Amino acid sequence: MAEKKLVESITSMDVDFAQWYTDVVRKAELADYSGVKGCMIIRPYGYAIWENIQKDLDERFKALGHENVYMPMFIPESLLQKEKDHVEGFAPECAWVTVGGENKLAERLCVRPTSETLFCEHFKNIIQSYRDLPKLYNQWVNVVRWEKTTRPFLRTSEFLWQEGHTMHATEEEARKETLQMLKVYEDFYRDTLAIPAVTGRKTEKEKFAGAMETYTIEPMMHNGVALQGGTTHYFGDGFAKAFDITFTDRDNTVKYPHQTSWGVSTRMIGAIIMTHGDDNGLILPPKVAPIQVVIIPVQMHKEGVLEKAQQVADTLRAAGIRVKLDSTDNSPGWKFAEYEMKGVPVRLEIGPRDIENNSCVLVSRVSRNKNFVSLDGLEATVKEMLTTVHNELVDRVKKNVEAKTHVATTWEEFADHAENHPGFIKAMWCGETECEEKVKELTGGVKSRCIPFDEENLAPTCVCCGKPAKHMLVWGRQY
Amino acid sequence: MAEKKLVESITSMDVDFAQWYTDVVRKAELADYSGVKGCMIIRPYGYAIWENIQKDLDERFKALGHENVYMPMFIPESLLQKEKDHVEGFAPECAWVTVGGENKLAERLCVRPTSETLFCEHFKNIIQSYRDLPKLYNQWVNVVRWEKTTRPFLRTSEFLWQEGHTMHATEEEARKETLQMLKVYEDFYRDTLAIPAVTGRKTEKEKFAGAMETYTIEPMMHNGVALQGGTTHYFGDGFAKAFDITFTDRDNTVKYPHQTSWGVSTRMIGAIIMTHGDDNGLILPPKVAPIQVVIIPVQMHKEGVLEKAQQVADTLRAAGIRVKLDSTDNSPGWKFAEYEMKGVPVRLEIGPRDIENNSCVLVSRVSRNKNFVSLDGLEATVKEMLTTVHNELVDRVKKNVEAKTHVATTWEEFADHAENHPGFIKAMWCGETECEEKVKELTGGVKSRCIPFDEENLAPTCVCCGKPAKHMLVWGRQY
Repeated sequence: MAEKKLVESITSMDVDFAQWYTDVVRKAELADYSGVKGCMIIRPYGYAIWENIQKDLDERFKALGHENVYMPMFIPESLLQKEKDHVEGFAPECAWVTVGGENKLAERLCVRPTSETLFCEHFKNIIQSYRDLPKLYNQWVNVVRWEKTTRPFLRTSEFLWQEGHTMHATEEEARKETLQMLKVYEDFYRDTLAIPAVTGRKTEKEKFAGAMETYTIEPMMHNGVALQGGTTHYFGDGFAKAFDITFTDRDNTVKYPHQTSWGVSTRMIGAIIMTHGDDNGLILPPKVAPIQVVIIPVQMHKEGVLEKAQQVADTLRAAGIRVKLDSTDNSPGWKFAEYEMKGVPVRLEIGPRDIENNSCVLVSRVSRNKNFVSLDGLEATVKEMLTTVHNELVDRVKKNVEAKTHVATTWEEFADHAENHPGFIKAMWCGETECEEKVKELTGGVKSRCIPFDEENLAPTCVCCGKPAKHMLVWGRQY
Repeated sequence: MAEKKLVESITSMDVDFAQWYTDVVRKAELADYSGVKGCMIIRPYGYAIWENIQKDLDERFKALGHENVYMPMFIPESLLQKEKDHVEGFAPECAWVTVGGENKLAERLCVRPTSETLFCEHFKNIIQSYRDLPKLYNQWVNVVRWEKTTRPFLRTSEFLWQEGHTMHATEEEARKETLQMLKVYEDFYRDTLAIPAVTGRKTEKEKFAGAMETYTIEPMMHNGVALQGGTTHYFGDGFAKAFDITFTDRDNTVKYPHQTSWGVSTRMIGAIIMTHGDDNGLILPPKVAPIQVVIIPVQMHKEGVLEKAQQVADTLRAAGIRVKLDSTDNSPGWKFAEYEMKGVPVRLEIGPRDIENNSCVLVSRVSRNKNFVSLDGLEATVKEMLTTVHNELVDRVKKNVEAKTHVATTWEEFADHAENHPGFIKAMWCGETECEEKVKELTGGVKSRCIPFDEENLAPTCVCCGKPAKHMLVWGRQY
């Protein structure tokens, strides 16, 4: 039977989380492999999620005064080399265009891995006076980082993202922007993706190539592994100096402006899958779900059922809810399984007896509870239900993060958590890169996620070397 | 004076149209040159136009059932070579990635010039049955065609576009789609961009590489030169055969599906500039203008003026109108010139005397007529005014096209028009590619634009060779 096949086809999360992930990506028709190594095809259902993400974030950016632009996707090698740390960080993973038309190029061109250098070249042309500042730019584009091992959404050679690039007259203003945009990401993750997550500052070792400070949001996946969910960078005037970008300030002196950049990518779709999904498939947060409510008519061929289902669909659609009515000949049971797989947040069942009672059944994809509700005022009831599903997701994530966050005050505790308790480890740290490297080596991959904003004083000494502690770090394995 | 400088800085259209174009692109801050040969930077004002274009077209596509996807931007050389005509058409203008990370690639990758091959590879995986058809896909992406001479928006090595790719069970349905999407472009050009334009079929010589039929929309620029504004292609089952895409039909036989593709690009911004602009700068069609109404307070420092201007701005914004209130210290005259340069469709002036009379002044960017209107019901008045500006633009384009479309029944007439009368030439044609080539050579560049849908029977013989005529062609020079 088709129903059976559909469910059988997913590996259980607990058996093999990686295989479960791949199964969901393919069975929910989010993405497909392509013939191009490391590149994926984002299918309609996956792309519709991305469009909802874009729309929401773009409004948040614009509300804060940011403007969208488009920079070329090619970076001449000499331009990439202008900032030393930056080129060292990115050159090893660049794709290089060496032939254009039928001719070998005099200078090879990198396909953008990120666009700081191009923005700087442009800023140099358009910034002369304090009146030209701030520049608050963003672009929605594809970027390429040549990866050796890839997985759909999580790590692909080409991916889609937004990259914000801003220039400010003062350090203070630029630092404020860096933190403000991290806050935007944090709010978006929690309020739109239903993923509350830890935020903080990256250590020296984990900073972005060329940045003075990197901030990060680190959502924890269902299995306790971290995903770097988005970063914001404060560059100081390093790039400005390398690119000779100056402006005349109010006081008539010539100064270097201060710079930031920040980005999130299609990787967020991977975060949604791995944070919310279960053994029945995907679970989509209502705010980005392409279909928020699927209507499944029961005993559909009885008189009046389809007509009523269509009426309900029209009513909900008119109220701005994204609705799909499935009136195909598949059985209700098959449909239940299919839309659970696709992670539709709310299922609405309606049959002859419901219609008689002027009611229908609403089922949350999270709790799977059945709610018998009146057809009167259904728009409001459904909207409430969508909010309920969102809150159920947030609560579940909070509980998971809490259950999988461990404290270690000694190396023995740390090693035990690292080996036996998937999740985050909170522990004190001396501030030295050597200790981060040693921890990673000894644990086979546990890295510092961030210095969280709400540091606790867990112990006086570094969990690794025993020297006086400088910071509390959140540690964890990562995708 | 600043005002003087602003106006002086544009070359007159009649003196040097090409220079006028470049001046407008730069002074209106639509685009800037980049350090990457042939690639442009789309600045915030230009990109905001593109966003409005995207939103409008995307709604039209989705209303017809199309879904957005994202394909990789790299095409392995072997994949590009699968369809013979296609690779011959595109290979000479491809940019090639030959190094990834630090290694030479085993097979070089083309940066997509168009994505038929990638879509076909995917279609092969997802199409098995008639139930899987039609597939109605679209993507909004960047593409690269290595151009020797480039101009912002008109011809750049990298540009932004949408490319629709569809697969159908029957030839009839695919042909209908090809014409339907041309109609979408035609409607969009006329109703959104205020550019009514001739549409028709391309000759064998001018067809897209690999297509059986190519249809085109050919707007005429103010100076009489054509711009290929958008094309739709019917491929038959040529690609399907090359890629071995088959489906089992209702009658249980295995068949090849029929394919279309269609696209428009950032070149449309070039069309807007060159169709509507004048010696004072850009003129934007209201539906895509980032600022539809600019409010310029007069005697701004008099009590109550700014407050009232702000009230008016709020009222209009609440009615869904895109408004900017310029309260900077520049003189009203300087502001008038600046927003004329930027092509803002309607200017609203408001000063102490207007406020006393409960009125304001509306000025159309096209006619430049002053309209004294009441502040009561201003939203409706302004919306009407925006419609008026749109209609003024459409009428002006129609008149220009009419005035610059010439009929030639003899070669002498044709040669005279080609040399002395910029614009389109309608003339009969025998159907042979040789005649198209000869005309191009003899006139130094006049090419066939299309066989229009409303062909006229102007003469019995081909204007070039004198053999019996098969079609009427619209001829013209092109960008």
